Amino acid sequence: MFEALETGKFLSPEEYKARELELRQKLLEAQFDQAERDYPVIILVAGLPGAGKGTLVHRLNEWMDPRRIETSAIWMHSDEEEERPFFWRFWRKLPPKGKTGIFLGSWYTRPLHDATEGKLGTRDLQVQLEEINAFERMLYDDGALLIKIWLHVTRETQRHQLDEEAPRLQQNPRVGAYAGHWWEMYPQALTTAEQILLGSDTGHTPWHLIEADDRLYREITGGEIILQALQERASRSAKPASTKANHQPSASGRDQPTVLAGVPADLTLNKNEYRIQLHRQQRHLQDLAWLAHRQRRSLVAVFEGWDAAGKGSAIRRVTAPIDPRLYQVVQYAAPTDEERAHHYLWRFWRKLERDGRATLFDRSWYGRVLVERVEQLTPVDAWRRAYHEINQFEGQLVAHGCIVVKFWLHITPEEQLRRFEDRQKKPHKQYKITEDDWRNRERWNDYEIAVEDMVAHTSTGFAPWTLVAGNDKRYARIQILQTLCNALNQAMGGEYPAPEPAAIMSDRFQPTAPNS
Amino acid sequence: MFEALETGKFLSPEEYKARELELRQKLLEAQFDQAERDYPVIILVAGLPGAGKGTLVHRLNEWMDPRRIETSAIWMHSDEEEERPFFWRFWRKLPPKGKTGIFLGSWYTRPLHDATEGKLGTRDLQVQLEEINAFERMLYDDGALLIKIWLHVTRETQRHQLDEEAPRLQQNPRVGAYAGHWWEMYPQALTTAEQILLGSDTGHTPWHLIEADDRLYREITGGEIILQALQERASRSAKPASTKANHQPSASGRDQPTVLAGVPADLTLNKNEYRIQLHRQQRHLQDLAWLAHRQRRSLVAVFEGWDAAGKGSAIRRVTAPIDPRLYQVVQYAAPTDEERAHHYLWRFWRKLERDGRATLFDRSWYGRVLVERVEQLTPVDAWRRAYHEINQFEGQLVAHGCIVVKFWLHITPEEQLRRFEDRQKKPHKQYKITEDDWRNRERWNDYEIAVEDMVAHTSTGFAPWTLVAGNDKRYARIQILQTLCNALNQAMGGEYPAPEPAAIMSDRFQPTAPNS
Repeated sequence: MFEALETGKFLSPEEYKARELELRQKLLEAQFDQAERDYPVIILVAGLPGAGKGTLVHRLNEWMDPRRIETSAIWMHSDEEEERPFFWRFWRKLPPKGKTGIFLGSWYTRPLHDATEGKLGTRDLQVQLEEINAFERMLYDDGALLIKIWLHVTRETQRHQLDEEAPRLQQNPRVGAYAGHWWEMYPQALTTAEQILLGSDTGHTPWHLIEADDRLYREITGGEIILQALQERASRSAKPASTKANHQPSASGRDQPTVLAGVPADLTLNKNEYRIQLHRQQRHLQDLAWLAHRQRRSLVAVFEGWDAAGKGSAIRRVTAPIDPRLYQVVQYAAPTDEERAHHYLWRFWRKLERDGRATLFDRSWYGRVLVERVEQLTPVDAWRRAYHEINQFEGQLVAHGCIVVKFWLHITPEEQLRRFEDRQKKPHKQYKITEDDWRNRERWNDYEIAVEDMVAHTSTGFAPWTLVAGNDKRYARIQILQTLCNALNQAMGGEYPAPEPAAIMSDRFQPTAPNS
Repeated sequence: MFEALETGKFLSPEEYKARELELRQKLLEAQFDQAERDYPVIILVAGLPGAGKGTLVHRLNEWMDPRRIETSAIWMHSDEEEERPFFWRFWRKLPPKGKTGIFLGSWYTRPLHDATEGKLGTRDLQVQLEEINAFERMLYDDGALLIKIWLHVTRETQRHQLDEEAPRLQQNPRVGAYAGHWWEMYPQALTTAEQILLGSDTGHTPWHLIEADDRLYREITGGEIILQALQERASRSAKPASTKANHQPSASGRDQPTVLAGVPADLTLNKNEYRIQLHRQQRHLQDLAWLAHRQRRSLVAVFEGWDAAGKGSAIRRVTAPIDPRLYQVVQYAAPTDEERAHHYLWRFWRKLERDGRATLFDRSWYGRVLVERVEQLTPVDAWRRAYHEINQFEGQLVAHGCIVVKFWLHITPEEQLRRFEDRQKKPHKQYKITEDDWRNRERWNDYEIAVEDMVAHTSTGFAPWTLVAGNDKRYARIQILQTLCNALNQAMGGEYPAPEPAAIMSDRFQPTAPNS
C-alpha cells in the first residue's frame, strides 16, 4: 500500500508560503468556530519514528491557537497508567466538547511497536485492532470528530530524519538510542504498519495517508486535511443519526415473563443462620480483599436494582469487613458539567482505581440502558449501541485483570410497595422516598423489559449478571457476599475457599449488629 | 503532653453498645444534613503506627454511609505524585462541598516518619509545620470543616496491636516489617509527635487527642468528637466572616502614580532587530526546554495583563520553539461546577504538570486579586488573604523545583484604545472585542491599583513579577522570551547562556513570520 506514498511529492518554499498563509487563517477560523460546537475534535498524528510527527504537531500548534488545543504526547507511561486498563490513559486525555486534542502517539503506538518487535503475534494484534475500532466507533457515534493522519517516509528519509534530529534536539534522550534500531526494523515495521492501517481504516474513522518525505509538503497537506475535516464536520448541523429524537416505547408488543420472573421470591434466611453466614462470608471477604491487593487484582462490583431493593444496606455489608484502604464506593447521580461534556462512559472511567483495590458502583453505566431508556432521555440507537460499548468496556477491565461482578437486586412489586409504605411511616426513613420512586413504580413493566434486555445483552462469560433474590434482605446480603467471595476466589485460582464456620466463630472479628 | 492520655480510660462492652446505637443514628443524620451544606468536611485520623487508626476509620465507614465518604489512604505515593509538589497529592483528594473526606494518614505522616528517623532536622520540621498550618488555615478560611484526631497509645499497646495485627491481616505486607522497627523507635516517635502536635494545634484547626489503648473507648470517643464537630459547624449558618459581603471600593483615597507608571511606554524594536532577536531567543528557549526536561525541572509561566495587551500572541511566540511534548497552555474562563465546589486554588493545582514540562497559564490564580477584587465578586477579606495563599502556593512550587515566572503585560490606555478600535475595524478580529472589554476599560484606575497591590504583595524573591513594556509588541515578545530564558538558565546553574546570533542565523530552524 505504501508504493503510492513514494512518488516524490514536494512543495517549493514559495508554494508553501502561499498556501500556508491561507491555511493558517482558515484553520484559526475553523478552530474558533469549533468552540461553539457540541463535539470534540481528536487529531491523531501517527507514523513510524522519524516520520516527522513531532514537527507536524509543532506546526499545528503554531498555526492554530495553542490555548484551545491540548496536545497529549503518549511516550511515557506513569505507574498510575500502567495500573489501569490500557485505554484509561487515553480516556483521561480525551478533549471535552468544543475543544481539540492532538495525540502525538496514540492507541496505535504500542501495538505498532510491540508487533514490530515480535512481542505481539498477528492474532493478538488483530484483537487489539478490534478493540481500537470499537473505541473509535464509540467516540464517532457520540459525535466526536476523529482525524487520523499517518505520515509515511522511506527508509532513507527515516534514517536521515532520525540522524538529523539527534544533534538538533541534543537533549532528547530518546531519539539517539532509537535511530539505529529503527533503521534495522524498517521493513518489519512497515509490514506491521500496513496490517494496522488496513485493520483500522473504517468508513467512519478513515486514515489519511501522507507522503511525508518532504517537510513542506507534509505540513501543508496535514494542515489541509485537518481543515477539510473540520469544515466538513461543521457543515453537518448536528451529530449523526443518533441525536435525532427517535424514541419508541420500550414495552411495545411484549407480554411474556422476563428473566426476573425466574428469581425466587420466597427464599429466606433465619436470623441465626444469617448471623453465622454473615460472619463467615465477611471474614472470608476480608482475607480475599487483602489477597487481591497483594496480587494487584481489582474488584469492580456493580449494584443495580429496583428502588428500595436494599442496595445501600447490601453495600454496607460488603464494605464492613474490607480495610478502608482497599475500597471506594462511588455513587452516581446527575452528571457534572465536565462529565456532560464527554462521552457517557467517561465519568466511570475517571473513577477507576489503581490495581489492587475494590470499587463498588452504586448505580453505574447501566443507567444508559435502564433509566435513560425508560425515561427516554437517550435516543433509541444510542442506548441500543450501549450494550456493545459496555461489553467492550467490561472486556477491557477483565483483560486487564479486574474482577467484574454485577448485581441486580430484585424484589417483587408487592415487596416494594411494603417497603415504600414502611419508609413513609418511619420519620427517619422518609428522606429515602421521593415522588420519583412512586413514578418509577408505575413504569415497572418498562423497567422489567429493560432489565431483561440488559441481562440478555450484557451477561457475558467474563462479566455475568447475578440476579439477587431480594425479598428477604438477609438472604440477599448473603447471596451477594457469597457471590463476591466466589468470584474473587475463582479469579485468584480457587485456592482460598471459605474457612470452616466453627473456626470463624471463635475468631475475634466482631461485626456490629445489622441495623435493620 | 501524653501523660494525660495514659490514664486507663476504657468502655465496657455494654456501655459501648448503648452509646454506639445513639451515635450511629446521629452520625447518619449529621451526614445527611451535611450533603445540603456548602462546605466540605475533612477528617484526619493520625497517630503512630499501631495506634488503631485503621480500625477507627473502618468503624466510621461502617457507622456512616460509605457512599458519601471518600477515604484516602496516604500510604503509597505514585510517581505522578512524587513528580509534583508535596501537597498536590492532597489537593487531588480534597472533598468537594457537601462531601466528606477521611484521610487515613495525611500531610502529617511523612514529617512524622522523617523526623522520627532523623531524616528531618528540627528546623526543617518547623518549616514543614508552617506549610501545613498555612494549608489548613486556607481550607478553614474557605469554610471547610477540618477535624483532626490523634490516637495515642502506650508502647505496650502499640507493640501489642502491631503484633496482633500481623496474623489477622496476614496479607498486609506492611505491618509485619514495621512492628519491631516502631517498637524501637517509640520514644523518638513520641518526641516528634509532641513537636508536631504542639506546632500545628491552632485555634481554628485544633487537635483532638484520644487515649486509644482501649478499642471501645477509642472508637466511641472518635465518633463522638466527629459528631460534635459536625453539629457545631452546622449550627453556624454560614461560613466564617469571609462570606459576608464586605466590599469596599478598591480605589478609595489613592491618587498617586503606581508601579505601572514606571514601565517605559516608548521602547520599540525595529523589524530587523526583532527578527534576529526572536530567532536567537527562540533557539535558546528550545534548547533550554529540553534541558529542563532532562533535569526534571518544570516551568510555570503566568501571563496576566490588560485586555488587548497581546498575551495570546506572546504565548504563541513562546510555544513556537518548544517541542509540543514539553508544554501545555492552560486558559482560564469561568470555573466549572466541579471547580466551584472546591477552594479557588484547586483548579490551578489540578492542572499542574509532572516534572520536566512547561505550563503556560493564560490568566491564572491572580484573577482572585484582580478581576474578582475589582468586580467585587469576592469579599474583601477573601481576596486580601489570597496574597498570602498565593505566596504559599508559589513557594511550594519553587521548593519542589519549579521555575516560576510571572508577566504583567502593560500597555497605556491610549495604546489599548488604539488596539480596540483596530479590532473593531477588522472583520476577522471583531470576535476579540466584547462589551466586557469596554467596561473593564472604564475601571482602568481600579485595575491599576489592584495591579500595584498585587505586585507589592506577591513579587517575591523566589517568584518575582516582570512588568512587560507592551506598547510595542515586538519589544514585549523579546522581553518575555529573554526573561524566560534567563530564568531557566539561572535556575539550571547559569551554564547555558544564549548562543551567538551569527551561529543561530545559519541554523536550519525557521520560525514562521509573525502574523501581526
